[in-house]
Amino acid sequence: MSENGFGARLMHMLDAFACHSDEQDRLTRLYLSSAHKRACEDLIVRMRQAGMTVRTDPVATVIGRYEATAPGAPALLIGSHIDTVRNAGRYDGTLGVLAALVAVEELNRTGERRPFAIEIVAFGDEEGVRFPVTLCGSKALAGTLDPSVLGVADSDGIELRDALIAFGCDPDDLSNARYDPECALAFIEAHIEQGPVLEDAGQPLGVVTAINGAKRYRVSVIGSAGHAGTVPMSLRRDALTAAAEMVLAVEDLARASDDAVATVGAFTAQPGAVNVIAGEANFTVDLRSPSNAVCDDIAGKLCGTMTEIAARRGVQVAVEETHAMPSVACAEQLIGALGKAVDMTGHVPVMLPSGAGHDAMAMASLCATGMLFVRCQDGLSHHPDEAIAEADAHACVEAILHFIRMFKPVPNAGASPAFGLAD
Amino acid sequence: MSENGFGARLMHMLDAFACHSDEQDRLTRLYLSSAHKRACEDLIVRMRQAGMTVRTDPVATVIGRYEATAPGAPALLIGSHIDTVRNAGRYDGTLGVLAALVAVEELNRTGERRPFAIEIVAFGDEEGVRFPVTLCGSKALAGTLDPSVLGVADSDGIELRDALIAFGCDPDDLSNARYDPECALAFIEAHIEQGPVLEDAGQPLGVVTAINGAKRYRVSVIGSAGHAGTVPMSLRRDALTAAAEMVLAVEDLARASDDAVATVGAFTAQPGAVNVIAGEANFTVDLRSPSNAVCDDIAGKLCGTMTEIAARRGVQVAVEETHAMPSVACAEQLIGALGKAVDMTGHVPVMLPSGAGHDAMAMASLCATGMLFVRCQDGLSHHPDEAIAEADAHACVEAILHFIRMFKPVPNAGASPAFGLAD
Repeated sequence: MSENGFGARLMHMLDAFACHSDEQDRLTRLYLSSAHKRACEDLIVRMRQAGMTVRTDPVATVIGRYEATAPGAPALLIGSHIDTVRNAGRYDGTLGVLAALVAVEELNRTGERRPFAIEIVAFGDEEGVRFPVTLCGSKALAGTLDPSVLGVADSDGIELRDALIAFGCDPDDLSNARYDPECALAFIEAHIEQGPVLEDAGQPLGVVTAINGAKRYRVSVIGSAGHAGTVPMSLRRDALTAAAEMVLAVEDLARASDDAVATVGAFTAQPGAVNVIAGEANFTVDLRSPSNAVCDDIAGKLCGTMTEIAARRGVQVAVEETHAMPSVACAEQLIGALGKAVDMTGHVPVMLPSGAGHDAMAMASLCATGMLFVRCQDGLSHHPDEAIAEADAHACVEAILHFIRMFKPVPNAGASPAFGLAD
Repeated sequence: MSENGFGARLMHMLDAFACHSDEQDRLTRLYLSSAHKRACEDLIVRMRQAGMTVRTDPVATVIGRYEATAPGAPALLIGSHIDTVRNAGRYDGTLGVLAALVAVEELNRTGERRPFAIEIVAFGDEEGVRFPVTLCGSKALAGTLDPSVLGVADSDGIELRDALIAFGCDPDDLSNARYDPECALAFIEAHIEQGPVLEDAGQPLGVVTAINGAKRYRVSVIGSAGHAGTVPMSLRRDALTAAAEMVLAVEDLARASDDAVATVGAFTAQPGAVNVIAGEANFTVDLRSPSNAVCDDIAGKLCGTMTEIAARRGVQVAVEETHAMPSVACAEQLIGALGKAVDMTGHVPVMLPSGAGHDAMAMASLCATGMLFVRCQDGLSHHPDEAIAEADAHACVEAILHFIRMFKPVPNAGASPAFGLAD
């Protein structure tokens, strides 16, 4: 392979896929849209050219199978999603599908087969932009998609069920979308990092240890409005300064933990005039950690600290939990194997949690899962300036190939993850 | 005088004046409106009944004169404004005019005259609601009103000049509005406190030491937006948390001074989403002190602290001064005399600065000025729930009478404040 040959191939394919857009001048590829349809058709052609057999499941997930040495053997699943946000970059999601495809193209080119099949999955709904649901594809494959979601509608009033039928799928066959757990050896997802850790570490690839759990809160502080000139500092019950102290407490608690991030992203104060002491302030808290225990611990401390600040300042505080999602650990053996695969590319694998959610979260209830992160420029994602280096794309495909070559199915493992590493 | 007799009289008169409104169901009395006209006519009738001669100046200030022992003697000026904000309370401004009137009524009832005249002034524009100018009446009397303001227009496009003519005034006579400094012994203004200090001290009356100077700033913090889940705490340049730290620094600096208040009243963060680290935050600072040196000192420290916080957090900060008004000290001798007058009512005079601006600020360039504050419920002003106690209104009139009786003009004082205290 010429230097960065896999990278050049992958970048070329990613550029081609960026043309499948619902909008003229920017990339927007929503679930079950005509651009999604064209992307699926393009992918199916490419999969077949790589020696794969292809099917589309009841929720429009495209699944290409590269057969094992012995036909019908259980499969290693590799993939990600091909839908995007509005005005998106071209790497988020699609990279994971096409990197796997470039790896399979290489196996097919040399006629190399493994004792397990390789199935590339391209989910259609990870971003949750069009319908008020998310991870439809991976949940359906894992058998955890509630059939009632077929009734949700997009902003034009089109129900998910009808959009699936128009796309050419059979939503009534949803119960058959579930992948047989006995046949799923593991799920691997490559994805851009969407953060600055790899760039900061100067490494192209990272191995995800867990997908962070998240808790979100809406915090409301009620003090007493007053004239900015006439109320002495000692008699104030200033909702804005109380909230500012709470914001810093959120930051301090996350900083004090090695294993969590916390963000106050929205903050408002009322009445919001230059010469009026704020009587009310509202802000949000987004708290994430790969450890549910750490998340719970910080959440508890946060509520305690806010209550203490409010009492000391004579204001009232109300904290409402608006969202809670437990963390999903990646499989220990897959973390080790992916680390070794990265090592074999000549780079140092950076071990890190994923702060964002991914299809791997849903797939974890089907089989062991692992994730590979690819360095992205300025940690930017969900933006047209999203960018990766060709050399990093090359390293990603190489690592996937190394992983495939060392991966070994373990027979009779039953419900437990059924895989091992080649000697 | 029966117990609280002055108070009952004053409260009755304040209630009557609250009927002069531009709006049906709430009190709104804007400069040169028909309600302002009716209030002036009402006041003129009451002044004449109290033995005063009345004139209206070129900017609609009503001036009633209660003659001295020797006609034509210099005058002690007492008064405030009779315009209001929209949806106002009935005490802000009007109290100072009518309390003086009740005091003069008492002098007139007993035929008591002083060696100086007493002139009650009722300014028409202190709130600055209708036109984009403020203190027109007191500035005109002090001779500091720039004639070019006659060209400013209200939201209906009506120029101040035309509104004055429609009101019955002669704006071309503005240069003659200036009060002869040789004839102005002092200016005294009674006003509700608009703050909680007197209520907190359990005293009905306060003596103002100075009208606070004010500086206002617009502060803009630029950091780096990012994904709330994927950017580790150590790699963040969070504009919102940086701004929160600056807000607390503003509060700390004001708290550390005995003589200043500082307020962040408005605060916004962009993009303002629960799962996005804020890339930008903007807030206002309102800083006030009776001492210009303290104001300047805190302002300097504030800029230094904000710069330090920004540098430490890797964000940029821009601080823009949007307003600056120096403080106006009340005359030492008037502070002493008003304190003694309050003392004679049986109450303890609370010495305090005024955090809000008043006509006395403009009058200070004409003659020595002093202010008397009256306790108001919950420190509330500019609100229909604005309230004072009848007993406090009584104490206010009593203190004004005590002051009038101890005040003594000093002959030949020239340009310096020309007054003394009776033996």
